[in-house]
Amino acid sequence: MIIAGPCSIDKHFIPTCLKVAELGATHLRAGLFKPRSGASRWAGMGNEGERSLELGLEMMKEVKARTGLKIVAEALSEEQIEILYDYVDVFQIGTRNQTASELLRAFGRQDKPIILKRGMATTLEEFIQYISYITYEGNNDVVLCERGIRTFETATRNTFDISAIPYLKQNTTCKVIGDPSHGTGVRDLVIPVSLACLAAGADGIMVEVHEQPDLALTDGPQSLYVEQFAELMKKVKAYGQIN
Amino acid sequence: MIIAGPCSIDKHFIPTCLKVAELGATHLRAGLFKPRSGASRWAGMGNEGERSLELGLEMMKEVKARTGLKIVAEALSEEQIEILYDYVDVFQIGTRNQTASELLRAFGRQDKPIILKRGMATTLEEFIQYISYITYEGNNDVVLCERGIRTFETATRNTFDISAIPYLKQNTTCKVIGDPSHGTGVRDLVIPVSLACLAAGADGIMVEVHEQPDLALTDGPQSLYVEQFAELMKKVKAYGQIN
Amino acid sequence: MIIAGPCSIDKHFIPTCLKVAELGATHLRAGLFKPRSGASRWAGMGNEGERSLELGLEMMKEVKARTGLKIVAEALSEEQIEILYDYVDVFQIGTRNQTASELLRAFGRQDKPIILKRGMATTLEEFIQYISYITYEGNNDVVLCERGIRTFETATRNTFDISAIPYLKQNTTCKVIGDPSHGTGVRDLVIPVSLACLAAGADGIMVEVHEQPDLALTDGPQSLYVEQFAELMKKVKAYGQIN
Amino acid sequence: MIIAGPCSIDKHFIPTCLKVAELGATHLRAGLFKPRSGASRWAGMGNEGERSLELGLEMMKEVKARTGLKIVAEALSEEQIEILYDYVDVFQIGTRNQTASELLRAFGRQDKPIILKRGMATTLEEFIQYISYITYEGNNDVVLCERGIRTFETATRNTFDISAIPYLKQNTTCKVIGDPSHGTGVRDLVIPVSLACLAAGADGIMVEVHEQPDLALTDGPQSLYVEQFAELMKKVKAYGQIN
Repeated sequence: MIIAGPCSIDKHFIPTCLKVAELGATHLRAGLFKPRSGASRWAGMGNEGERSLELGLEMMKEVKARTGLKIVAEALSEEQIEILYDYVDVFQIGTRNQTASELLRAFGRQDKPIILKRGMATTLEEFIQYISYITYEGNNDVVLCERGIRTFETATRNTFDISAIPYLKQNTTCKVIGDPSHGTGVRDLVIPVSLACLAAGADGIMVEVHEQPDLALTDGPQSLYVEQFAELMKKVKAYGQIN
Repeated sequence: MIIAGPCSIDKHFIPTCLKVAELGATHLRAGLFKPRSGASRWAGMGNEGERSLELGLEMMKEVKARTGLKIVAEALSEEQIEILYDYVDVFQIGTRNQTASELLRAFGRQDKPIILKRGMATTLEEFIQYISYITYEGNNDVVLCERGIRTFETATRNTFDISAIPYLKQNTTCKVIGDPSHGTGVRDLVIPVSLACLAAGADGIMVEVHEQPDLALTDGPQSLYVEQFAELMKKVKAYGQIN
Repeated sequence: MIIAGPCSIDKHFIPTCLKVAELGATHLRAGLFKPRSGASRWAGMGNEGERSLELGLEMMKEVKARTGLKIVAEALSEEQIEILYDYVDVFQIGTRNQTASELLRAFGRQDKPIILKRGMATTLEEFIQYISYITYEGNNDVVLCERGIRTFETATRNTFDISAIPYLKQNTTCKVIGDPSHGTGVRDLVIPVSLACLAAGADGIMVEVHEQPDLALTDGPQSLYVEQFAELMKKVKAYGQIN
Repeated sequence: MIIAGPCSIDKHFIPTCLKVAELGATHLRAGLFKPRSGASRWAGMGNEGERSLELGLEMMKEVKARTGLKIVAEALSEEQIEILYDYVDVFQIGTRNQTASELLRAFGRQDKPIILKRGMATTLEEFIQYISYITYEGNNDVVLCERGIRTFETATRNTFDISAIPYLKQNTTCKVIGDPSHGTGVRDLVIPVSLACLAAGADGIMVEVHEQPDLALTDGPQSLYVEQFAELMKKVKAYGQIN
């Protein structure tokens, strides 16, 4: 499970996706609605008005048709779940909504897989308990995603809790993936931490890739260049052969 | 602004409220819907079925009529906002939903004051930015509440960030209150930390009080006995005289 | 117990000390040896060579003679304990050395009071256990100092754990003081957090004051102006009258 | 660089060391002096009196002679450095002493390699700066060890900061190793996190192994069984072949 693509949908979305698809990605990230820490910040094409929203959805449809890959997208409300429903294969619950229990229930009523990202201050015990908000509603297809927690360390955007990978594998029946892009926030740390995830037993990784990271509207500094993603995939394949 | 009462509505709700009202509380806590870290846990009378929900609402109505005090209650979804609307004077956004931006927007569309509790991993800078999700929708009556953050310390349930009180006062125009019950999680620390809040410039405090804490369905260990609340109020009044 | 003065001894040391003495300080801070996070940083007059060391010691002697106040100074090694012995009334163990158990034993062999500052990642339970390294050697005069812990919050230099004050008072027989200068790292937060310490039951506070904070060689941004210290002392006295 | 052995020297020390040596360890852990969080706890054979100390040193000598491997041991004071000097090949500075700058200088005056373990609350930037206390004294042979930091997570003893491995490799010229035993505190997480370290670019790992972990006087729950160490070494070797 290699989920890759730009952080948010912009005009580089389709070309970047075509490249990562060619290099071996299995799923594509499609950031139509972006969670931000303030209402005045750009929050994705989905929040730019009707026309941008339509355009974003069309781009998702096109890229899915051209690559045949599955589309992963985050929804922040029931309304967004409905808008996205016909265009996505996997829903993502972002870290900022992981403890929003009533929203989790809404995802539990969907018939598509859910990637549940760990909250920034959620203990592993709690994380496991929160799964029940989804499963109690009938949806048992939950993938857990470690994406770093908040600590005193400032060299990285978050502290990637590598122990979470084997802990969640040992204590749940869910698939477990890692997101080293958010987990480190630093492009040059993404490859080594991605490999660490796989070595620790992860079922996959989610990484941000952009054909021109400097032009990305969100998360540029942590997005891999396409060449770096190629290098990562090469190493991932080598690693796969010893397992 | 002294917000007091049991953590969740139970059969001790009315008698406890009558007592804290007599002792000088200005607002009453009414926990009809409780956020919990797992779907299997008791989540308040509001989640026990139609009849319990109705009964809880009636109790809120009665206690308001008998004390004349304002009612503060948490809602975890737009649906719960609607249910509570006619019964509450002030809405509360809980710590687990503080970063759920779309839910914040829904509160921004209400015409009642909002208490926004700080998320467990939210920096003060971010906390200030999140206010905009409410104010951009037209509701400018936001009260900020420091309730402790997640740290390595285990002697207390959270680490109460006392600096948040003056920092938020200096950097926003909002009223700022403290919640030492959740901020410490330890009954015997609630009085000293409440007084510290006021000394640091807080506009009020929110404390859990229960006539029989050992029987409380939630947060018993951090709930004050009524006599302790009486002692706290006495000290609060003495403190008020020097300011 | 109001311990005040510049962070480190420099040419403003004596005039600043005379002023804080006049305003009601009970102890003077004398930073001859400064712990720094790298060997290339200025580490106090005590580390500038024989002549500076002598000069610093003379300044400590003079200021003690002129004010009659007690001198508090940090030592980072047994050698520094010996150098300082005749000039100080109270030894301080800094936060960076709080878990250096063999050094604590050396302080335990002294016959002067010890201020033990909490380590940045030390739980309250552990903090209490570390006292034994001092007391087992025979020195029972230990004052505990909360000075903030490391958390994800960046608006303040550390997160001042206000709950530590009542917790340590309730669980030890030691005096407990707070250091809001290091606990916040922000000048404008020092007064409110100092008052919070006293309201929470602290036996005293330790604050950095400098007659010209902009010229301070260390900790300028968190040092109070003399006028601010005057304001603080006025409030401290008003507060004292209600207790 | 595979450093293995019991946490502290006890009667299982020699047999355990012989086994890990046979399985491919390159260095042996020899815990003669143990840092503990209180003076009343057992602190290693080195602190049990003259005779135990002598016996412990003899065991170190014997195991070195029989295996030909290098001995790694922690010293907590200058005095302990002297006692250990003739018996060890590599000194270790423990996490609790990492910020004890004057002690670091003492290690800087030794002519043997130093393993510097990261403090529980030390940022990576600070960690790099602290190296200078050793190198300024003339000792440039410093190995950095990530061993987990203090966070809110309680499922693990510490949070192993996997990003530290590539960050320190990219920003220093030192060798970098990981200690998953302390980094997780949970036996069953040690193997996956060890492999993650190597995948992330570590130059080695340090792991606790005990022939009967239930009988270990310290750190039993995080010590690998000998069979687990055998399994780890098998995987380490497989991993080595793809690099």
